[in-house]
Amino acid sequence: MTGRSDSEDAGSSEFSFIARHFRPLAGPEALDLRDDCALMRCPVGEEFAISTDTMVENVHFLPDDPPETLGRKLLRCNLSDLAAMGARPHAYTLNVTVPREGRHDESWFAAFSHGLAEDQRHYGVHLIGGDTTSISGPLVLSATVFGLLKQNTALRRNSAKAGDDIWATGTIGDAALGLLVLQGRLKDPSGFLATRYRLPQPRTGLNLHGIVNAAMDISDGLIQDCGHIATESGVQLVIESEAVPASDAAASLGQDWLMQRLCGGDDYELLLTCPPERSRALQSVCKGARIPVHRIGRVQTGRGVRFLDATGQDLVLEQGGWQHF
Amino acid sequence: MTGRSDSEDAGSSEFSFIARHFRPLAGPEALDLRDDCALMRCPVGEEFAISTDTMVENVHFLPDDPPETLGRKLLRCNLSDLAAMGARPHAYTLNVTVPREGRHDESWFAAFSHGLAEDQRHYGVHLIGGDTTSISGPLVLSATVFGLLKQNTALRRNSAKAGDDIWATGTIGDAALGLLVLQGRLKDPSGFLATRYRLPQPRTGLNLHGIVNAAMDISDGLIQDCGHIATESGVQLVIESEAVPASDAAASLGQDWLMQRLCGGDDYELLLTCPPERSRALQSVCKGARIPVHRIGRVQTGRGVRFLDATGQDLVLEQGGWQHF
Repeated sequence: MTGRSDSEDAGSSEFSFIARHFRPLAGPEALDLRDDCALMRCPVGEEFAISTDTMVENVHFLPDDPPETLGRKLLRCNLSDLAAMGARPHAYTLNVTVPREGRHDESWFAAFSHGLAEDQRHYGVHLIGGDTTSISGPLVLSATVFGLLKQNTALRRNSAKAGDDIWATGTIGDAALGLLVLQGRLKDPSGFLATRYRLPQPRTGLNLHGIVNAAMDISDGLIQDCGHIATESGVQLVIESEAVPASDAAASLGQDWLMQRLCGGDDYELLLTCPPERSRALQSVCKGARIPVHRIGRVQTGRGVRFLDATGQDLVLEQGGWQHF
Repeated sequence: MTGRSDSEDAGSSEFSFIARHFRPLAGPEALDLRDDCALMRCPVGEEFAISTDTMVENVHFLPDDPPETLGRKLLRCNLSDLAAMGARPHAYTLNVTVPREGRHDESWFAAFSHGLAEDQRHYGVHLIGGDTTSISGPLVLSATVFGLLKQNTALRRNSAKAGDDIWATGTIGDAALGLLVLQGRLKDPSGFLATRYRLPQPRTGLNLHGIVNAAMDISDGLIQDCGHIATESGVQLVIESEAVPASDAAASLGQDWLMQRLCGGDDYELLLTCPPERSRALQSVCKGARIPVHRIGRVQTGRGVRFLDATGQDLVLEQGGWQHF
């Protein structure tokens, strides 16, 4: 039926569907997913950090990605935004828009929600509400996540200072290479790269307030995200491309893939700028959380982003490829 | 490209697109839509009511619905959930998933965001974040709205008491008839019914804490929503179908459309249960807000929902039509 109201989606079958797959994920604030709204309180002196993301089949994930990983990827992308602001994960809402063709059956949803349950335990979050609808088209998933942090402690993009070092957690470019592997364009027998594409590791749990000057998560690709910090902070970011950490799987592919690694998205690592005198504190916090962190460059006056090769020469991205000056 | 990361959507063109159409809608909590998260505080002693809804083209709205009304309808459906809990509108996030075919151009988005701006002023809400993505499929819109209310004052579905009267705001069934009009299956020269389908009137701004025992919004159709209160409260709802308020436009179509009116969704009126001794207080609050309210039945012990005809006989819905016992 065309243009039909919610009644189509919200019939008794939807209610039992919600009861089976989503009520077990719901925290007390969800009021059992039985009322018009969730009710959520904020501890005195704290505030909510809120992020929302949509993932569309064939755009942000592949039709044959395992259902266990899809909800987790959506959740983790959002949790990475919380990590970037220094907020601790608390809760989320979930909107699921399901293709009518029937490919997403009971067992698909059982696996989907099982994956979510696993990540809920791991990251200490719970579901507080949602909506399920149908579509003549691909699967669409949206989540809005809520983190908590002390008032006035949020890490921002607009506070990088000339003189800061630039740091990145984890390794850069694995997810972009993982997508190429899943597309059959690259080989990685270890499976490591594909897993990095399907299941990012948001760097939640770091307490970097008072240590770093600026932070964001690397979701659009290192180059573009460095540009965001440069723009928002009114500074220039200089990246030593040799220093950008590569995983063993990525390194084994050689330097031919450097551009893909620096431009590709979906890393969900943290990009940080930190005054040199606080390097030790940064490394100590990351070590305590068992999160690798590497210095990859420096902030200086100016604008934009520069990438330097091993000899200190500027690399410029031009017409889809790298060229030396 | 298939399975591509956010970088496709979040390129510089997306940033200027957001700047043009969405930044003007953003409140201070949005941090100019330039950071990883919004930051939102809750006044001491209050809590957030949170609701989320998705609307899909061809399911919840028609491809030729004016863009000015689409965002407003999405917002209003969610605001209606806040009204049902007794929360005052505060903010929202918006996820827009746009068909790649290019039908949704600059002028479409200008009209879409212009409609949102109008409703933001009217309801006192502001945008705090969002996501834009593309899809090979229909337009998908999701919003998560945030209301504020004093702690422990939320109106619930599970607190109707035997002896309560049942009340409904506004008129019931207009939106369902309006959809039939837009589908060419019914005539309404006044345009009233189509407008009720496209632009619901959420009943925000009523302060009914301490007056009504239970509340919810009528989104799935009066019959189904009465069933929700009956189930959640463990009571029976008896509706006098003659008392269910009809608009002039609906009444002029005669009794043949009663079933559509009672079953059809999208009313976004409030369904309330209220002890008889507080009827006056309820009417007084509604009158003060210029919101019509009518008594349509009573709550009694038992379960489920009964609809009575003008002679007090039970009407039962059977195989898509009404039959008398």
